[in-house]
Amino acid sequence: MNKQNRLSFASDYMEGAHPMILNRLIETNMVKSAGYGLDEFSESARARIRAACRAPEADIFFLTGGTQTNAVMIDAMLRSYQGVMAAESGHISIHEAGAIEFGGHKVLALPHTEGKISAAEIDRCIQAYWQDENHDHMVNPGMVYLSQPTEYGTLYSLEELKKISEVCRRSHILLYLDGARLAYALACPENDVTLADIASLCDAFYIGGTKCGALFGEAVVVPVHDSIPHLFSIIKQHGALLAKGRIAGIQFDTLFTDGLYEKIGRTAIEEADRIRKALEEKGYAFAFRSPTNQIFVRFEKKQAEELSEKIEMSFWENIGETHTVMRIATSWAACPEDTDALIACL
Amino acid sequence: MNKQNRLSFASDYMEGAHPMILNRLIETNMVKSAGYGLDEFSESARARIRAACRAPEADIFFLTGGTQTNAVMIDAMLRSYQGVMAAESGHISIHEAGAIEFGGHKVLALPHTEGKISAAEIDRCIQAYWQDENHDHMVNPGMVYLSQPTEYGTLYSLEELKKISEVCRRSHILLYLDGARLAYALACPENDVTLADIASLCDAFYIGGTKCGALFGEAVVVPVHDSIPHLFSIIKQHGALLAKGRIAGIQFDTLFTDGLYEKIGRTAIEEADRIRKALEEKGYAFAFRSPTNQIFVRFEKKQAEELSEKIEMSFWENIGETHTVMRIATSWAACPEDTDALIACL
Amino acid sequence: MNKQNRLSFASDYMEGAHPMILNRLIETNMVKSAGYGLDEFSESARARIRAACRAPEADIFFLTGGTQTNAVMIDAMLRSYQGVMAAESGHISIHEAGAIEFGGHKVLALPHTEGKISAAEIDRCIQAYWQDENHDHMVNPGMVYLSQPTEYGTLYSLEELKKISEVCRRSHILLYLDGARLAYALACPENDVTLADIASLCDAFYIGGTKCGALFGEAVVVPVHDSIPHLFSIIKQHGALLAKGRIAGIQFDTLFTDGLYEKIGRTAIEEADRIRKALEEKGYAFAFRSPTNQIFVRFEKKQAEELSEKIEMSFWENIGETHTVMRIATSWAACPEDTDALIACL
Amino acid sequence: MNKQNRLSFASDYMEGAHPMILNRLIETNMVKSAGYGLDEFSESARARIRAACRAPEADIFFLTGGTQTNAVMIDAMLRSYQGVMAAESGHISIHEAGAIEFGGHKVLALPHTEGKISAAEIDRCIQAYWQDENHDHMVNPGMVYLSQPTEYGTLYSLEELKKISEVCRRSHILLYLDGARLAYALACPENDVTLADIASLCDAFYIGGTKCGALFGEAVVVPVHDSIPHLFSIIKQHGALLAKGRIAGIQFDTLFTDGLYEKIGRTAIEEADRIRKALEEKGYAFAFRSPTNQIFVRFEKKQAEELSEKIEMSFWENIGETHTVMRIATSWAACPEDTDALIACL
Repeated sequence: MNKQNRLSFASDYMEGAHPMILNRLIETNMVKSAGYGLDEFSESARARIRAACRAPEADIFFLTGGTQTNAVMIDAMLRSYQGVMAAESGHISIHEAGAIEFGGHKVLALPHTEGKISAAEIDRCIQAYWQDENHDHMVNPGMVYLSQPTEYGTLYSLEELKKISEVCRRSHILLYLDGARLAYALACPENDVTLADIASLCDAFYIGGTKCGALFGEAVVVPVHDSIPHLFSIIKQHGALLAKGRIAGIQFDTLFTDGLYEKIGRTAIEEADRIRKALEEKGYAFAFRSPTNQIFVRFEKKQAEELSEKIEMSFWENIGETHTVMRIATSWAACPEDTDALIACL
Repeated sequence: MNKQNRLSFASDYMEGAHPMILNRLIETNMVKSAGYGLDEFSESARARIRAACRAPEADIFFLTGGTQTNAVMIDAMLRSYQGVMAAESGHISIHEAGAIEFGGHKVLALPHTEGKISAAEIDRCIQAYWQDENHDHMVNPGMVYLSQPTEYGTLYSLEELKKISEVCRRSHILLYLDGARLAYALACPENDVTLADIASLCDAFYIGGTKCGALFGEAVVVPVHDSIPHLFSIIKQHGALLAKGRIAGIQFDTLFTDGLYEKIGRTAIEEADRIRKALEEKGYAFAFRSPTNQIFVRFEKKQAEELSEKIEMSFWENIGETHTVMRIATSWAACPEDTDALIACL
Repeated sequence: MNKQNRLSFASDYMEGAHPMILNRLIETNMVKSAGYGLDEFSESARARIRAACRAPEADIFFLTGGTQTNAVMIDAMLRSYQGVMAAESGHISIHEAGAIEFGGHKVLALPHTEGKISAAEIDRCIQAYWQDENHDHMVNPGMVYLSQPTEYGTLYSLEELKKISEVCRRSHILLYLDGARLAYALACPENDVTLADIASLCDAFYIGGTKCGALFGEAVVVPVHDSIPHLFSIIKQHGALLAKGRIAGIQFDTLFTDGLYEKIGRTAIEEADRIRKALEEKGYAFAFRSPTNQIFVRFEKKQAEELSEKIEMSFWENIGETHTVMRIATSWAACPEDTDALIACL
Repeated sequence: MNKQNRLSFASDYMEGAHPMILNRLIETNMVKSAGYGLDEFSESARARIRAACRAPEADIFFLTGGTQTNAVMIDAMLRSYQGVMAAESGHISIHEAGAIEFGGHKVLALPHTEGKISAAEIDRCIQAYWQDENHDHMVNPGMVYLSQPTEYGTLYSLEELKKISEVCRRSHILLYLDGARLAYALACPENDVTLADIASLCDAFYIGGTKCGALFGEAVVVPVHDSIPHLFSIIKQHGALLAKGRIAGIQFDTLFTDGLYEKIGRTAIEEADRIRKALEEKGYAFAFRSPTNQIFVRFEKKQAEELSEKIEMSFWENIGETHTVMRIATSWAACPEDTDALIACL
């Protein structure tokens, strides 16, 4: 079929897993170990992640997907009457089928700039709540949700993150970071935010596996031990506790051996950079500038349709009647030949 | 360490996966495919499961764990004001950390006999609701939750299941079956209930992978197409939708190739039978009779402690001050040498 | 205290109840009657409301407040995976402390014009959902929430309401109308929407008592009998079922005797009209034009502060640094002398 | 109709309100006051209740019904992963249509003796949780729900209540008391528990108005100020905040003027005592002994049917095929002539 022969730049979770992960799964397959993440592989993974985050006391849990992790953590971090501030373009605002509301919480949508929200905007939301005479009739802003990179592939700078963290701490608001594609941030030359920075600035965050070379899995990091009591039970209650927790543990143990996680996104960034350069040279317009593994290109509709015959991209949004934005994504498994072929099509 | 050299009969999810599953994961690793279960592997798995269940129109979804699957399906099958009938010993009644209540539903606990509830008991609960003058102030019984095998390793006969299904259909009550360990039922000589029987008698059920040779995964089967509308979104909303759905699809595709799923539990049953025979010969008492891969033995406390030095079993419950019930479980990966060693310890 | 001598135009629920309601409560006080709305007074009120709405088959329930009624009805009308479309200025969007999200549903905020949403905007939201490739990952729009009058005191015309109803029915979307201040709409000369119109165009709505002369109480009307099954239990489950349902029943029976409900708002409208005219003559600017019992006036901040010494108004919003919008509200209990005094202060 | 001429002993919420309450409503009717319980009447009621409870710092809120109050307070007092211990005969266990589960919490049903649970039973439940190896997979017991009087009309003694409170405080478990019929306990000669005792032993409780002479209303008392933060918003979020809060405030202000609340149940107890004595003399059997305003009598079915022609009682439960338990309830509005007539029928 023609469709199957298309070059695939649809997303970063189209393949299986990094070969080293498969190897570890094979090697350890017949070892018997405890369930529910109490096994030695998960313990080892935790130790490595704590070291990478310079958070020696951190509580670490392994979950299976991004929406699940966001829903569990937001529920765990908020009281029943609180809501979560997030960019109106954020994943939890739009693409989680109401998972946050299912847990009883409102997403307080903030305006964004290229997917990012600012410390000033967060502060304004908090002040607006407290200054409103009727705030007791409104949803109390209890935490901030960010993602790094954002839905638009953009990055918070360390400076921006520090300011956000400062606003949050000053107002006793918790800060949570969704790192579904964190490996692509860490591998990006523009990025100046380390895992240790995130661990010191956030109250909780997750390190994405599913989109960064694992079969599945997200590692939740709570830097201050027991700052979220009974999190194990909360995870269980949300149906998010893996019986064979080792399968996630083994994957993260591998990803955090010899700094694999910090390297695994490099190829994706390099290939994305080549595509960005080619697009620029050929005069294509970007919907917005993103330095990571996602590229948002503005096409005339017809042009988009023609290219889609050869290249699988993701539809992003229409701009009026005539134009459309498509997303080109590279992955940890990107190969230069595909990039060459894509560039040749442009 | 001594503890690690113990013979492990603690549970059936202590190892990784059946080797054929790992092989398929390796073979397919670099194939690119669509996300969220829309890939060709998941489609193939669905076709095989439909055939095995003789349910050609069935909707099939792959989730990651048992508690998750129960919570999603119960939420999907009930209206907000309804509750689910289940054995008071059922998994959802006790060991899911309130996952069903998190979704807003009461578990209506029914008395059980060796883990099983009867058609008569279900009928009595339904009648009691409707005959109570104040039933509008009570939780409406909307569905029945069973597991096959039960928490106690026992089996519903086809006759029993038919009667339960009949009561449910007569009363417009939905019937759902938790098949976390279904492979061990299917492999049990005593069992007379096939996948096709379950598909014809239940409104939804799941075929367990996690405890039956997969790395993880449960296959939800809804025999009548679209009888649960928007189930995809409900799964997503519960954080239960795998981005790389193919990982679950590949595993079930393998489990349902050449009837593997119906065979995979055989060793477990054979080894359990040998252990049962040895226990009987040596005069041990069973807490209750279970024909599948779980054996519940009554020990004097001291005896249990001594055996636990050599054999890892699961604590089940205390009986008074002096006795205790321990669970011995075999798995799809059981090896006869371990059984021999266990028997030698008795 | 000075504050207590201020003229009160803060809201329409500052007094007790219409004297005829108190009289009926006194007359009936020692009659014994059934609980939970099964009494003869509630039955009589239902019959009168059915007649007024020309909805002879309607199911009618009496609840105690607006947020409660909205939360119960939205929960009752939506499936778990659905959300409710509403003006971003709507009461459920902002001022119900997350009650809708507590029930698990997202409020899908639509842009509004002076508090009103249009059929076109609703249609656009529905189409956007269905046309999005990823709509299964998004919240399904299941119903529309309107209020008449709106939060801004404006009115939907019959023509507008018909168009909205048509869009909803074409798309199998339910339509619900919040009539917290419905008496003030019915009493407004500009209004061309009757109770019977609402009953024929909406799937459910409520007739407000609390702000329209009752001690408390809202009458939910579901025009098609049993179109929301088990609503009694859903009301009970939300803690919204009055034990002494008669207290609400007696009030609505009174309000619907001799057309009282359709007359009770007249004084409020007349006095509001006098205030509007005076404001206009004295050159005050309106934040937006509202023909009912709420008037939104734009003041310089200092001016607002000075007036607030003498007149109790509600703060609405700031406009930049220098201006502020205040709400002046009249009620069913308005007296012309207070209006005179207010006008004298302007 | 015959049915309407029956003597009514069906319940204690069959009439309107105590005349003094109606008088106060009339006197205050045209006074304008702030909404949402911020009015002077509610403030005065709070002061009187604080004095009666000897809890000068208590936070006090007025809600509209028992199920609502239980659901709000249990939600407010528990974290998401926790459940509430209650008698399996408790109101929240059976007769609230799943309101507690709607809020996400499991009711952990404890065995009871005549409606009462013991400190020992509570302790056993807490210990069983913590001693279970798998307690992280179970619902954490976070609070205890009692009612005084119980569903069976029985009373906790001060000694019993102290023991329960001690177990709770030792285990960091919150104690909540449902006082729907508290006036009947306070008026009972056998009772040795005062409002001040309850305030000193419980973390929260409510003083029932609906069944004790008010049109409606329950007064929540949280003895330690701000020990449940944001309770106002939680009440609003549950749709339990009255706009005209004054209507509840005026009623409780009246009930707590000149000790009315502590006296209002006396007639009910006196008449119930006369009925109990007559039943005993005529050889009727009690299903269980209750000293308050509810009497549970065991009848032969035929006898019950015959009596029901003349006396309206509540059906309680069947005992086997031949017998039935009926409830006879007296109220604050009981009149001796009705009692005489009832006794004559026996």
